Amino acid sequence: MLNRDIIQNTGFRNTTTADAVTGFQLEVRNPNYRGIASSLVDGVSVTVGGHTWTHEETTVVLQGREFGLAELRASTGHRWPLTETMTVKVPLPGGLPAGVHVVAVDIRLRAPYFPIEFQPNVTHAERAVTLVDPVASPAFQYGVSTYSYTDDMYTLLTLEDALAEVADLGATGIEILGEANVPGYPNPSTAWIDDWHALVAKHRLTPTNFGSWIDSRMWLDRDLTAKEGAEQLARDINLAATLGFSFVRPKIGVISLDLVPHPIWDEAVARCLDLAAEKNIIIAPEIHSPTPIRHEVVDGYLEFIDRTGTKNFGLLIDTGIFMTKSAFQGWDLSGTPASEEEIPPPLRALKVPASDLVDIMKHVVFIQAKFYEVDEHLTDPHIPWREVFNVLKQQGYTGYLSSEYEGPRQPYRGIEQVRRQHAMFHQLERELS
Amino acid sequence: MLNRDIIQNTGFRNTTTADAVTGFQLEVRNPNYRGIASSLVDGVSVTVGGHTWTHEETTVVLQGREFGLAELRASTGHRWPLTETMTVKVPLPGGLPAGVHVVAVDIRLRAPYFPIEFQPNVTHAERAVTLVDPVASPAFQYGVSTYSYTDDMYTLLTLEDALAEVADLGATGIEILGEANVPGYPNPSTAWIDDWHALVAKHRLTPTNFGSWIDSRMWLDRDLTAKEGAEQLARDINLAATLGFSFVRPKIGVISLDLVPHPIWDEAVARCLDLAAEKNIIIAPEIHSPTPIRHEVVDGYLEFIDRTGTKNFGLLIDTGIFMTKSAFQGWDLSGTPASEEEIPPPLRALKVPASDLVDIMKHVVFIQAKFYEVDEHLTDPHIPWREVFNVLKQQGYTGYLSSEYEGPRQPYRGIEQVRRQHAMFHQLERELS
Repeated sequence: MLNRDIIQNTGFRNTTTADAVTGFQLEVRNPNYRGIASSLVDGVSVTVGGHTWTHEETTVVLQGREFGLAELRASTGHRWPLTETMTVKVPLPGGLPAGVHVVAVDIRLRAPYFPIEFQPNVTHAERAVTLVDPVASPAFQYGVSTYSYTDDMYTLLTLEDALAEVADLGATGIEILGEANVPGYPNPSTAWIDDWHALVAKHRLTPTNFGSWIDSRMWLDRDLTAKEGAEQLARDINLAATLGFSFVRPKIGVISLDLVPHPIWDEAVARCLDLAAEKNIIIAPEIHSPTPIRHEVVDGYLEFIDRTGTKNFGLLIDTGIFMTKSAFQGWDLSGTPASEEEIPPPLRALKVPASDLVDIMKHVVFIQAKFYEVDEHLTDPHIPWREVFNVLKQQGYTGYLSSEYEGPRQPYRGIEQVRRQHAMFHQLERELS
Repeated sequence: MLNRDIIQNTGFRNTTTADAVTGFQLEVRNPNYRGIASSLVDGVSVTVGGHTWTHEETTVVLQGREFGLAELRASTGHRWPLTETMTVKVPLPGGLPAGVHVVAVDIRLRAPYFPIEFQPNVTHAERAVTLVDPVASPAFQYGVSTYSYTDDMYTLLTLEDALAEVADLGATGIEILGEANVPGYPNPSTAWIDDWHALVAKHRLTPTNFGSWIDSRMWLDRDLTAKEGAEQLARDINLAATLGFSFVRPKIGVISLDLVPHPIWDEAVARCLDLAAEKNIIIAPEIHSPTPIRHEVVDGYLEFIDRTGTKNFGLLIDTGIFMTKSAFQGWDLSGTPASEEEIPPPLRALKVPASDLVDIMKHVVFIQAKFYEVDEHLTDPHIPWREVFNVLKQQGYTGYLSSEYEGPRQPYRGIEQVRRQHAMFHQLERELS
């Protein structure tokens, strides 16, 4: 589906030739209630950073063809359907800097059924959108979890929309949640499996981590047995492998306030190690706030690796553990900051030093780049990314950072926040290289 | 796509057996970020009009199967995917009265990966939604134009979503805009044409009116010739007939502030009369504010009918002409009422008496039930529907009233406003029968 805002997030980028950055472009949806012939599109003016490019200076692309204003006015046989965005191209040698820009457009459309005195109809739209400019050879790989788009998935975004957006912002990895994004889970149709492979190929994405659950408290009267837990995990290992994923994160039911996993976890995972080896899957439970790195839960996982000698089990770090400032300010961002007691434990500043990673780094296989906010200056007020990046680089980590936006869920906010996070990551890459 | 609100508009209705109204039901989307096993759904409580039905008193339907609370808790093999709504059924002999209700739900879900002390997670949602209760043998036929859902189409709603909603509120007619809702217009694929027929059959809808344009000012340097105008109209008559429509409304370019159509209209329409007869299409230009019924434009159309003796041309009434109060209050409803001079002419109270219909009634073939607001008491502050209905009944009109919501375009507002309008129409039907 298109973004309901006229100015779309997806597609805002600099334009280049072989040897130069020539300008920038953005996508707008048709503000009319019908599609129209291209000759009735009378150009678009664009304002960014106090400079305006008039409707005579920009060009537009409709259905694959680029038009200047005179060409638009004289055009025949071309259209701007409601279901397609129009690309607006702005000449600007060097392009725009990466980051958040307030972009304004005036879209001029002519409607013969209105008196000529009122023509063209001009639709003004204005919006802060983020231009991401990925570095050519980053130290880490970047991905996005569909979790970032919670509440927008299946209401505003199809799975394909989400994948297109992830690819558009320059990420290469796609992380999904099994029982969220696989229709007919746990038994998707073969047609859907084929569609999935076609979709990731089209958007040049690599399936990374497959979110899985071992629902130890499925029923009120008894817990899952280890055998049942293993069956849930094996089911997802098979499905993840079929879909081309490399990691499976089992979210294991807990038995305490500090998230000690149900004791079945050990046997449930052990029963799946041969299958994981066969399917080239690494099982990776997450280290998630309020559990720090130096904790019996992590010790238990490390002991498991030692004991079994497995190569198919590793640690997944959720970067929420590094928070130096609590994140909860009321989910709608309008509330006053809550007192520390009101803040749910996983959102409190756990303040794990990034240097705590060093001891466990050889077992860290995946990082969920959990975050709650990146502001318009590309600053994250909660998580000390520079420290985290420094340790990861120093330790030679070359795996994925997979965005997990978990802040307020206003429509489209997750999309914009993930774009900001990636713009910030690439800025850090440039600074630290 | 699902409504982003937890409580959906579509599906709110009374439940019946063969001889009684037994309660009501509504649809909710899954407030979690993943789908879950049905045993982790711990029921839903519902509050309407000060009365609460607890999670032990309601039942839910997941994937076609109805569950009480104990059955839910013990269930295996059933799920609540993110992509599907859950039906919540509430026992209430006699059901709810038609109209707007503030409905609140508390959806209880269990998450084994959260400490048991915090379980179940309860999601509270509250929303004013409209229950429509169509009369069994209405005097008129009711339809909806996709125009009502402008800005929501292709951003929040697929065409199928729109058709499902139209069917859900009890309407039988679907009106579309050609160059808006036909992918690949003017040449949709045969696959899409097949899909369209399957879609209207599935939702038991009758295609009514096909919105068309004669874009007289396609280019700045010259107007369309009558022959070119006829080609645009013929193209749409053919397409409308292929899709099963009975009416084609050409929106003709105008040459004056009071919307006098371009003089090519006469020859352009005349050239299409044989085709329209062959295809069983009635061409019906709209009488639209600020043009009243007693006006040279209407006289011209009547003269055309007299002169040609055609049965394939009639009048379409847009009910905006009957407004007794101007509609413009700032499109976001937050502005102070504009002065009359600021109000665009079509939104000013034209105050055409409904009795003016009498003289032209034998040529009125279709009515677009244009409106800007129906309030929570099912009152339209702008249009005197009782008078309009009285004249239409007295004149023996049995055709369609096809909703054209044209008020503020906040997300999902059009859906809710059309539901209110239909609830109001059925209330009027009962009062006047």
